Amino acid sequence: MMKYSDQQLMDIIQKRLSPNRYRHSLQVAQVARDLAEQYGVDPGKAYATGLLHDYAKGMSGQELLDRAEIYQLMEHPADSLLPDLLHGPVGAYLVKQELGIEDEEMLAAIAHHTLGAVAMGSLEEIIYLADMIEPGRDYPGMERLKCLTERSLEQGMLYGLETTIRYCIDQQRIIHPRSIEVRNYYLQKCLDLDGC
Amino acid sequence: MMKYSDQQLMDIIQKRLSPNRYRHSLQVAQVARDLAEQYGVDPGKAYATGLLHDYAKGMSGQELLDRAEIYQLMEHPADSLLPDLLHGPVGAYLVKQELGIEDEEMLAAIAHHTLGAVAMGSLEEIIYLADMIEPGRDYPGMERLKCLTERSLEQGMLYGLETTIRYCIDQQRIIHPRSIEVRNYYLQKCLDLDGC
Repeated sequence: MMKYSDQQLMDIIQKRLSPNRYRHSLQVAQVARDLAEQYGVDPGKAYATGLLHDYAKGMSGQELLDRAEIYQLMEHPADSLLPDLLHGPVGAYLVKQELGIEDEEMLAAIAHHTLGAVAMGSLEEIIYLADMIEPGRDYPGMERLKCLTERSLEQGMLYGLETTIRYCIDQQRIIHPRSIEVRNYYLQKCLDLDGC
Repeated sequence: MMKYSDQQLMDIIQKRLSPNRYRHSLQVAQVARDLAEQYGVDPGKAYATGLLHDYAKGMSGQELLDRAEIYQLMEHPADSLLPDLLHGPVGAYLVKQELGIEDEEMLAAIAHHTLGAVAMGSLEEIIYLADMIEPGRDYPGMERLKCLTERSLEQGMLYGLETTIRYCIDQQRIIHPRSIEVRNYYLQKCLDLDGC
């Protein structure tokens, strides 16, 4: 059982984030609850995780980097090149320490919502995807990602990761090697499902 | 000094490859010689390396995998998922063993022409790019790649790697994580050149 009501979590998040990011968190929570109902995941847990997923998003890149080093959350040499992505693992760490939330599925979903991970559980996939398709988002391919996500979480993950990789190429941004590892994992999973 | 004439190398390659791949090798050699002249690299060495770059291309994926394991050329877990790409390192190994060619720049260019590498030398970049822009090639973006390669080897490498990554996404193929590492390296190099 969650030790916080939705309203308590909203109050906590609202104090930590800008109005835009707070609204984004509410919308991620709502989409995550809908996807959870569709895919047989606890909707209340999905809603709470959606509210909390950007817990550390208000921190600067330097602060995220400092904290990730202190908390020993650096896992890959590329992490230091892309400090903003550390708001996932740093957020999960802080949600556990500061709020006392110890549900491993929730913490994994918060930690992995920025980069994804190999062999994610359904709640992790739902939070990753809800973050990309909440109604405030607008980018080429978003309607297709929504459509694929309603068809299958695996197909949604594959397309979501590929959308991110293409975006990094187009925008001349560093691609985190973990994105490729996770994309290759979902590609193989989807090809296995297709029987190819 | 090369211990083989161009004609001797052509005869060696012609025996190892199909007519199509032999013609491809001749064209890569010619483009490599032109690029070498433009960029101040030894044109004779570039031509010979172009002839030899697909030395191991006639081998099956299984044979490449077996040989890469015996010769201890496996460097990354993804190598076994993409055995065909091993024709680079296996080819360099065999060119040294069977032909007695010990020029490290030539061997590196043969080894790295499939995936690229961080901090390649000019001859390596020339062979990688000549392989992608020889006149027998035809794919979206090739004219742009030729144009960028004539402007700068670094810009050519960046666009060549990104073309390969996009192709793997479109064709539902595994992306080798090394491609990402090398693309990120050239992105940073090109951004530094632009002063951004």
